[in-house]
Amino acid sequence: MKKSLQKLKEIDTELQLISHTSALLGWDQETYMPRGAVEERARQQALLSGILHDYLTDTKVGSLLEACGVSEENLKGDNNLDERDRAFLRKFSREYFRETKIPKDLVVAFSEEASLSQAQWIEARKKSDFSLFAPHLQKILDLSREKAEKIGYTDHPYDALLDEFEPFATTASIKKIFSSLKPELMDLVRKIAGSKQVDDSFLLKNYPVREQEAFGRTVLQDLGFDFNRGRLDVSAHPFTTSTGSDDVRLTTRYQENQFRTGIFGIIHECGHGLYELGFPDDIKVSILAEGTSLGIHESQSRTWENIIGRSLPFWEYYFPKLKDMFPNQLRDVNLEQFYKGINKVEPSMIRVDADEVTYPLHIILRFELELALISGELAVKDLPEAWNSKMEELLGIRPENDAEGVLQDVHWSFGAIGYFPTYALGNLYGAQFFNSMKKSLGNVDDLIKQGDFGIILGWLRENIHQYGSIFTAEELCINATGEPLNPVYCSKYLENKYRSIYGF
Amino acid sequence: MKKSLQKLKEIDTELQLISHTSALLGWDQETYMPRGAVEERARQQALLSGILHDYLTDTKVGSLLEACGVSEENLKGDNNLDERDRAFLRKFSREYFRETKIPKDLVVAFSEEASLSQAQWIEARKKSDFSLFAPHLQKILDLSREKAEKIGYTDHPYDALLDEFEPFATTASIKKIFSSLKPELMDLVRKIAGSKQVDDSFLLKNYPVREQEAFGRTVLQDLGFDFNRGRLDVSAHPFTTSTGSDDVRLTTRYQENQFRTGIFGIIHECGHGLYELGFPDDIKVSILAEGTSLGIHESQSRTWENIIGRSLPFWEYYFPKLKDMFPNQLRDVNLEQFYKGINKVEPSMIRVDADEVTYPLHIILRFELELALISGELAVKDLPEAWNSKMEELLGIRPENDAEGVLQDVHWSFGAIGYFPTYALGNLYGAQFFNSMKKSLGNVDDLIKQGDFGIILGWLRENIHQYGSIFTAEELCINATGEPLNPVYCSKYLENKYRSIYGF
Repeated sequence: MKKSLQKLKEIDTELQLISHTSALLGWDQETYMPRGAVEERARQQALLSGILHDYLTDTKVGSLLEACGVSEENLKGDNNLDERDRAFLRKFSREYFRETKIPKDLVVAFSEEASLSQAQWIEARKKSDFSLFAPHLQKILDLSREKAEKIGYTDHPYDALLDEFEPFATTASIKKIFSSLKPELMDLVRKIAGSKQVDDSFLLKNYPVREQEAFGRTVLQDLGFDFNRGRLDVSAHPFTTSTGSDDVRLTTRYQENQFRTGIFGIIHECGHGLYELGFPDDIKVSILAEGTSLGIHESQSRTWENIIGRSLPFWEYYFPKLKDMFPNQLRDVNLEQFYKGINKVEPSMIRVDADEVTYPLHIILRFELELALISGELAVKDLPEAWNSKMEELLGIRPENDAEGVLQDVHWSFGAIGYFPTYALGNLYGAQFFNSMKKSLGNVDDLIKQGDFGIILGWLRENIHQYGSIFTAEELCINATGEPLNPVYCSKYLENKYRSIYGF
Repeated sequence: MKKSLQKLKEIDTELQLISHTSALLGWDQETYMPRGAVEERARQQALLSGILHDYLTDTKVGSLLEACGVSEENLKGDNNLDERDRAFLRKFSREYFRETKIPKDLVVAFSEEASLSQAQWIEARKKSDFSLFAPHLQKILDLSREKAEKIGYTDHPYDALLDEFEPFATTASIKKIFSSLKPELMDLVRKIAGSKQVDDSFLLKNYPVREQEAFGRTVLQDLGFDFNRGRLDVSAHPFTTSTGSDDVRLTTRYQENQFRTGIFGIIHECGHGLYELGFPDDIKVSILAEGTSLGIHESQSRTWENIIGRSLPFWEYYFPKLKDMFPNQLRDVNLEQFYKGINKVEPSMIRVDADEVTYPLHIILRFELELALISGELAVKDLPEAWNSKMEELLGIRPENDAEGVLQDVHWSFGAIGYFPTYALGNLYGAQFFNSMKKSLGNVDDLIKQGDFGIILGWLRENIHQYGSIFTAEELCINATGEPLNPVYCSKYLENKYRSIYGF
């Protein structure tokens, strides 16, 4: 058994090395690759995906798992193995069973349709014409349903899709969480709308990119991002990727006339990066050296971006430095005005530009529509109208066209159905973790005010990062906070913060 | 047979896609990779090498080659196939036979020793102490000899090593070429030493890197380098690599107080890059889309760097622009002085800093020592003394320590024995090609003087680039110039150019 386990770990190492290589191909494509290379790059990626699939689904992998006592009913294998090895087996065997259930034909059909569909989505969005994208979305939905049937589920086909991004989560559990969150957020939005709006016009002045970047790099360094094991570059859409266990790369984008975009992009990605850099040596280059779910991953980025990065103490520390750098742009602005400006709440059409309060409502909208599409209750042709109505219901605004409505996100076009909920889970987990951290560390605000982020990062390392995927999201949450995910922490955090900003 | 050929081409495509991926890992390592990633990067590279080896030496490849009529005596396979397919079979089967003859144990031992040895070489060079490197060099030589025995050879074990870099070349042919080149170059160096030395002090003034780069990019664009299919970046040692058939990446380095380094590095790598970008669509992503030998590759870089880039007409075009950019640095310098300065000849210790005339003597020295080491006539312990004596014999100067002598180059440390001669072959092929180009195009100097490089590039595309590896170096040379490699063109070119500069 020890020998089989060892062999599985060797196969896993090879899978990770290839995944990291594939991540580099992806990073390069978004940052430095010349345009003409795009076609061959797709073929390079497809070949690596094929190699990964073949390695993972090789029949010898099945025999080795069996030799370790693993079955679909007992993912963690033999009781006599130590807990870390059993955690490895759970994570590895879940991927194995999932991947082997999807026939290669379906994998290929899905990946081909995803390519086509993404190209068509770009076109459709440009023309703001949903009808161009509709037949492809239909195909993606059909293939997704087929995938869900192959993978299997107990209650809802959506469970099988969600599981890829948020392992062990269920449609029912998400529904329950969102059903309490939704009215609270809507109520908060109403209260804010009834208050005097804050001014953020000074954030729209001209902030030269070079200075924005210098400021961002200083912040990254202060927060504990290790440039010996990572980088910061520019791409059209910010992201974080690990091209090695000691090689975590962040990207952001800068807008000269919108100060928020660059810096909060950087702090957000830094949160992802610190998680990836916080896995301990003994699980490096293994399947355990990954975030345990996208929701947990997003909790790290949202905590640094919003709870810390948009807090008053954070800018008590940084605002004087920022003012030194941009004396003209911020001449007549004081700390309080700045703090309020970066936290302006206002219902808007585009998810990625949304503030902290309205953001989860954008997610709830997508979740409800995805469920209805997958279950067949909603037809693709009726989707734009359903989207627009739901926007009115949740945020009180109605898109004027498909581009600022149903066509705004790339996710569906490449087949990522079941992905959106993880964004909102990130806000919820983040607030709950932060609450526990405060209880444990006490004066967190004072630390932030002094620009002393090491103790905060230490708590996250200790309670979250060091475990990689050893615990499930729920286990991790219970260990770190004493209870499973509870949306009340996020609601309370938002209520308190915005009551003081808007004075309702 | 058609089917087998098709299948081989598919395997070849996969090999090229993986090679290009591996090239990206290498490029990234030298340009943007954070330091901490170095260990895992080596493992990623090793895994890809293993996959390449397994794909290439798979038993089915042997059967497919056989089905195409290929044997070691008939590399091009069945006569009924068309010539392009037979060229493909020749190139592919040579790599197959070579790779299958080297046992995997030896491949692994070699690659491990190369890693160790390279690390030890860095240390030894830092301390300028050959004794630290000697045992590793001994091991590299032993393994190289073993490799040569496995691969097989007719006359000299060095043939088997040389063949990896310069296919179809032999020790005897290189010896013959160098034996005529050596006395001529030594004579030329003596004549120059007896003339009045030119002034190059203005090249050592301060040239800000940002302007050097801007100038370099303009030149690249003018020479026909396509930034839609390539890039220019910075690395410690300049190189060119193809990370895709439409993705050719150059690097250079800049020195603030040495103008030559940056710009001639760029023009040199541009020559390599134009070759790689000049392969036609129908051989893209195949084994034929490679330079046919390193000697031919180097002919392209040397032609652009030296024959064109260090010519008087080239600077008739660019010197006014350069003077606009660096008015202070070049205030009292006229075109003729500039031209002479960039062509200053002076025996020096370090190969990579050597001028056009002394450069091949550095290569001849290495070739003679490699031969003596491989044949066993020279013992490793006697190598530093042999090096120093040969420097005195060929260039009239003697290194004061190992760092500026026998330890200066990285090549031996990673096992590249048989590589050096290709550098000098580049000079020879380049001069011969350029001579034919002039005969065919007439007023090449006028074209250069007008900054009109398209016709020159067209001739190189027509006669060299478009064939990739379809012809051997010798076939290509005969087709383009009417005769096999003949060192007289290089000697004449150097004699004429430097007689006019030094006036002897």
